[in-house]
Amino acid sequence: MKELKPVKLGILGMGTVASGLVNIMDFNKNKVDAAIKRDLTVTKVLVKNLGKKRNVSLPQEVYTQDAYEVINSDTDIIVELIGGINPAYEYIKAALNNKKHVVTANKALIAKHGEELELLADKNNVKLMYEASVGGGIPILNTIRENLSTNEFESVFGILNGTTNFILTQMTENGLDYDQAVKEAQRLGFAEADPSSDVGGDDAAYKLSILSGLAFGQKIHVNDIPKEGIIKISREDIVYAKELGYNIKLLAAGIKKGNEIELSVHPAFIPASHPLSTVKNEYNAVYLKGNAVGELLFYGKGAGSLPTGSAVLEDIIYIVKNVSSSADEIAENRQAGNKRENNLAVSNKGYKQYYINMEVIDKPGVLGSIASIFGKYNVSLASVVQRQKNGDNTVPLVFITHEAERKNIDAALEETKKLEFVTELTSIIIVESFK
Amino acid sequence: MKELKPVKLGILGMGTVASGLVNIMDFNKNKVDAAIKRDLTVTKVLVKNLGKKRNVSLPQEVYTQDAYEVINSDTDIIVELIGGINPAYEYIKAALNNKKHVVTANKALIAKHGEELELLADKNNVKLMYEASVGGGIPILNTIRENLSTNEFESVFGILNGTTNFILTQMTENGLDYDQAVKEAQRLGFAEADPSSDVGGDDAAYKLSILSGLAFGQKIHVNDIPKEGIIKISREDIVYAKELGYNIKLLAAGIKKGNEIELSVHPAFIPASHPLSTVKNEYNAVYLKGNAVGELLFYGKGAGSLPTGSAVLEDIIYIVKNVSSSADEIAENRQAGNKRENNLAVSNKGYKQYYINMEVIDKPGVLGSIASIFGKYNVSLASVVQRQKNGDNTVPLVFITHEAERKNIDAALEETKKLEFVTELTSIIIVESFK
Repeated sequence: MKELKPVKLGILGMGTVASGLVNIMDFNKNKVDAAIKRDLTVTKVLVKNLGKKRNVSLPQEVYTQDAYEVINSDTDIIVELIGGINPAYEYIKAALNNKKHVVTANKALIAKHGEELELLADKNNVKLMYEASVGGGIPILNTIRENLSTNEFESVFGILNGTTNFILTQMTENGLDYDQAVKEAQRLGFAEADPSSDVGGDDAAYKLSILSGLAFGQKIHVNDIPKEGIIKISREDIVYAKELGYNIKLLAAGIKKGNEIELSVHPAFIPASHPLSTVKNEYNAVYLKGNAVGELLFYGKGAGSLPTGSAVLEDIIYIVKNVSSSADEIAENRQAGNKRENNLAVSNKGYKQYYINMEVIDKPGVLGSIASIFGKYNVSLASVVQRQKNGDNTVPLVFITHEAERKNIDAALEETKKLEFVTELTSIIIVESFK
Repeated sequence: MKELKPVKLGILGMGTVASGLVNIMDFNKNKVDAAIKRDLTVTKVLVKNLGKKRNVSLPQEVYTQDAYEVINSDTDIIVELIGGINPAYEYIKAALNNKKHVVTANKALIAKHGEELELLADKNNVKLMYEASVGGGIPILNTIRENLSTNEFESVFGILNGTTNFILTQMTENGLDYDQAVKEAQRLGFAEADPSSDVGGDDAAYKLSILSGLAFGQKIHVNDIPKEGIIKISREDIVYAKELGYNIKLLAAGIKKGNEIELSVHPAFIPASHPLSTVKNEYNAVYLKGNAVGELLFYGKGAGSLPTGSAVLEDIIYIVKNVSSSADEIAENRQAGNKRENNLAVSNKGYKQYYINMEVIDKPGVLGSIASIFGKYNVSLASVVQRQKNGDNTVPLVFITHEAERKNIDAALEETKKLEFVTELTSIIIVESFK
């Protein structure tokens, strides 16, 4: 075995993920040695507070409050773990221009500026890796890139946000309402004090942009992904979902049909028998269909110090293993991928099944009238649940439609709402059949 | 982009998997081009019958009935897809000694002779890859090797045999008894005319030997893996499992505790809420726990022409991408892995929960007497189901124990069987808690 120089890491940030990374490098040192036959050492770390006590065994002299001391020092790889767009964006550009490889877990940055940063990495003949930005510890991006490279993907569905999945699981299994579940998630550290990026679907949309960019060979900007969060999901929706044989999840969905891709983030009814239905609490999963391999599911922890740190470390290992190859393989793959299909249009014309919940006045003929209106718009009903009276004179009328275009559903609902005996349209949620 | 020589493949066998491989190379040619920027061509194929009509578009002149014409011809990679030990073993040795890289889907051969063949590949500075030997299309081996290399694995659980999983699913969901389910599996092509290697657990044991060898860094010979098949699983066991909140699966289990690993293939009660419980019919899954990444599950098609062909093709792509690297990285990883932990002992002392079903004569005090005997051996009962009388005077008594050593369970059962009111011990099945 050759004696090789140690690999020097500069780390921007020393929060949850960074401390996970450094701790894994310690307790799994024998695995790192076996993988790369070189030492990995952390030589510079950007922190806000030099005096803070940290649960990692790094010497005090590695810490600095000056980002450019990390970026410009004698390091091989810069690991960006501060998150957010600014100043991470400037730091990564500076690092790439400085011919440093970059590893990041920053989904917002990669979703918004990934293409530009990848081109900059290619131009400088260095690598930019971001496995930890999607699915936390699940090795999904590198597996698609390296171990599923000969498949055309027909669809990608993900449960990519652990916070919302925790909230929905608590509502389903413990009977909490939305507000209680959010509080429980905050108490356990699964939700921020301001959970809006999670519950509104932004976080999942960032990840879907990155994931579908890789699976379909074309990046769709996160602003072009329609998204709906889980804020409107009620305890009642959850109960009906269960009764009808489903679980409600916040789904990130990408479907390729010919030269079009439909991307969206939305709450969805998932059949209880589908593997995504058993993905609970803070777990994440990615479900893919390839034209050769068929259906695949990858499941694991979508966040957390050690799982995410593990994904960052695998990117570092990949760079070290591949850095000596003369051709920049990643860049070539990326270009080939981008070139091949960059004419895909974004569409949202897909036929879907829908769950609809409305309040109606309980009298004969109501269901018939509503079914007729939906029929007029080519929407037929697959199943109906009618419950006992509420306190007042109304009853909830719940049904799942057969597959239909959203514009027809909306037109039928518009007309339905004008009926005198329809007092409220409570919910409309996509029922995903994974076709 | 450089113009590079085409890569020449010689294929041994042209059955289901080989035709899948050749067809994927056709319909996903753009993906192969993007991945390796070189043509892949099939130059020689070993077949039994030269005249047979095949659903692949290869010119007639590639076919030969002489294996050594394939092995000795001007090819870069030999793809072995005839299966079984002989003559595949001799063919692969000849190919490796001939400095050809080898890709195989042959689980029996790799489980029995993998170490020797890997050493031979290393000696000849060529690669031996076998992703398709475990989990069909699921990219599990290469993902463990390449994308999870810095984790110490604590356990590996797999549903690795699609035939038995199909049979058990049919018994569970459609109320078939074992014989009916086997016939249905045979009718649909999921079981061989002689299904004994599948239903007896051999096939799963081969795969566990390979999988755990990679995950734990030490190969355990398949002969050292205790195995129990599904032949004794009755419709009644399935019904009790459901009632108690479980599904019965044939589980391949590897657990590392300190310097010991427990490996076994056995039917197991899987909690209905566990992700492995939703793996149905012909699907396979691998569930791993790493000390950094935590729990991961990989799910997909464990067999079939295109999924397995896809896994073979990914190995070919890997070899082409890595063949120019000066150091033989795979060999180095392998040696490092083997060296690191080659003192692991095989053990089967594990504490488990057990499902026990016995026929007893229905009279007061029976449960108390049995519980006392189990208590004497430090086995306590976690749940009990007592059913109505059978036609004769007996009733089934079903219980799940708390965790206990198998030798204590066996001692308690031995004593229980001597009780005059115990007429039959019907079943004993492990209840897996994945701890």
